[in-house]
Amino acid sequence: MVIDVHTHHVPRGWPELGWPGAPRLRVDSEREATILVNDREFRRIQDDCWDPRVRLERMDRDGVDRQVVSPTPVFFGYDRPAEQGVRIAKVFNDLALELCAGPRLIPFCQVPLQDPDLACAELDRCLANGHRGVEIGNHVGDRDLDDPGVVRFLQHCAERNVPVFVHPWDLPAGPRVERWMAQWLVGMPAETHLSILAMILGGVFDRVPDTLRICFAHGGGSFAFWLGRFENAWHRRHDLVGGSERPPSHYLGRFSVDSAVFDERALRLLVDTLGEDHVMLGSDFPYPLGESPAGDLIRRAPFLSGTARAKLLAANAEAFLG
Amino acid sequence: MVIDVHTHHVPRGWPELGWPGAPRLRVDSEREATILVNDREFRRIQDDCWDPRVRLERMDRDGVDRQVVSPTPVFFGYDRPAEQGVRIAKVFNDLALELCAGPRLIPFCQVPLQDPDLACAELDRCLANGHRGVEIGNHVGDRDLDDPGVVRFLQHCAERNVPVFVHPWDLPAGPRVERWMAQWLVGMPAETHLSILAMILGGVFDRVPDTLRICFAHGGGSFAFWLGRFENAWHRRHDLVGGSERPPSHYLGRFSVDSAVFDERALRLLVDTLGEDHVMLGSDFPYPLGESPAGDLIRRAPFLSGTARAKLLAANAEAFLG
Repeated sequence: MVIDVHTHHVPRGWPELGWPGAPRLRVDSEREATILVNDREFRRIQDDCWDPRVRLERMDRDGVDRQVVSPTPVFFGYDRPAEQGVRIAKVFNDLALELCAGPRLIPFCQVPLQDPDLACAELDRCLANGHRGVEIGNHVGDRDLDDPGVVRFLQHCAERNVPVFVHPWDLPAGPRVERWMAQWLVGMPAETHLSILAMILGGVFDRVPDTLRICFAHGGGSFAFWLGRFENAWHRRHDLVGGSERPPSHYLGRFSVDSAVFDERALRLLVDTLGEDHVMLGSDFPYPLGESPAGDLIRRAPFLSGTARAKLLAANAEAFLG
Repeated sequence: MVIDVHTHHVPRGWPELGWPGAPRLRVDSEREATILVNDREFRRIQDDCWDPRVRLERMDRDGVDRQVVSPTPVFFGYDRPAEQGVRIAKVFNDLALELCAGPRLIPFCQVPLQDPDLACAELDRCLANGHRGVEIGNHVGDRDLDDPGVVRFLQHCAERNVPVFVHPWDLPAGPRVERWMAQWLVGMPAETHLSILAMILGGVFDRVPDTLRICFAHGGGSFAFWLGRFENAWHRRHDLVGGSERPPSHYLGRFSVDSAVFDERALRLLVDTLGEDHVMLGSDFPYPLGESPAGDLIRRAPFLSGTARAKLLAANAEAFLG
């Protein structure tokens, strides 16, 4: 069994919402479409993004049995008025269930995280309809994952026994990062790193029960590589950094990450730091900054024992999905 | 022999420049002072920052024979008019020579990088007076290290056979990072990561001769951990990411990093990725987010051979210093 916990979709039937600045989908042909943001091309996509038959073919080719299918974060809409956020989520989530009709595609919903009550309500609606988890962005404007409203939503997920997948989005802009995909190459790892720091120092892991199952995309960003710097700072500048009850390393085991680090040495550091129970295959399928073939790094990493490899390829995901 | 390539100083005699917003030094006692920025406390410092006798005691305690002594980046002044930048650099650099009068303290100067001609001139003046290298910030406002003016300065350093130490500074601000020292814990590793990416994709290593000796602080930021993601992107989105003649991994060997990663697993990844000739002891002495005792991680890392350990502790630094 092989489970890929990090894949995205865009529904081909995404409607024109008619709001200025809302992401739009321009269908270019039977097999191609373009995501537009403010009428500018954000990303060209192919039918592996929306057509279940094409996805299943790719999965067969890569030896993947099941995929967690999450929204493409540019569609989150957290920056919009709450009622628009609800509408976006409902449209996206209902279309996701059409894509994920078969047993191999596991739908994760999105929620209007700018409004915790509405987010909890949309989550419950989606669970009743067949969604198996939720993908959230790593921040809501200037609020990070320790924001009281976000924590309330996470608490709700813990109570409902729902897995949470955290994906970076809405990246810092500026001339130095708006070239060479630096927002993806540098911004995304830093964003996720920051959010894990906020979860720890904001005391979220101190307050939310350990039944919360939460996974961070792209290997948890740069967190694992910089744990030592974080730990040192927590001890030596406790006046400024000591927001958690215990030192940062205490909270390893409270979250998982995916394997999308593209390098055997980086995967090894992840497994050595976070533990072999807390890393799961995640490919970022079908996007070009993802791993292709999905799972190749885990399959080939010589340092993994057979047991560890099986955990990373499926068993950890099965536990995460519940 | 043990050489620490990453230490900072602030001269106790730093004068009031009288410009609004310029960093100031408030001497609180014989042994304590406070760096002020816009009249707010930026950092309290002790006499190990400016008193050579105290520094040498600390070095003896830690088993460090020699230190490269660089400016504290908040004093760079790249954001000021060029003539002010020159004045700041001259004052700072001349006071550094007083601190580094003995053979164990190796002074690195700073330059007004906002003006390449003036930067080259100040470098030459400093070299004539006894400086052995230069520390630069990782960007000048919106210009990264591939900016033509910065590249001209780097070219000058290569011609003069002068080692360059790159330190992150002037970090992105905002509510999410202005707490818990997140600018230091997340911002600094991301800034340096971005600058190495800019050096590669901006074609700097393609244009500047390989006589350039350049070292990046804090293990090169998150670069080494994310090389795989970078390499994958360069190949799969060459239309957007392919700014260099060769793939990113080709340029390993063109730069060094210090060892300030505070974790054996992270150090191992650095050495495995960048090579044992390109990692050097750097402690960030005397600041509290630095390594204390300096060099402890290298001395204790069980995966290092005796040869590799000697390289990291001194031989690589000797080659870097020239």
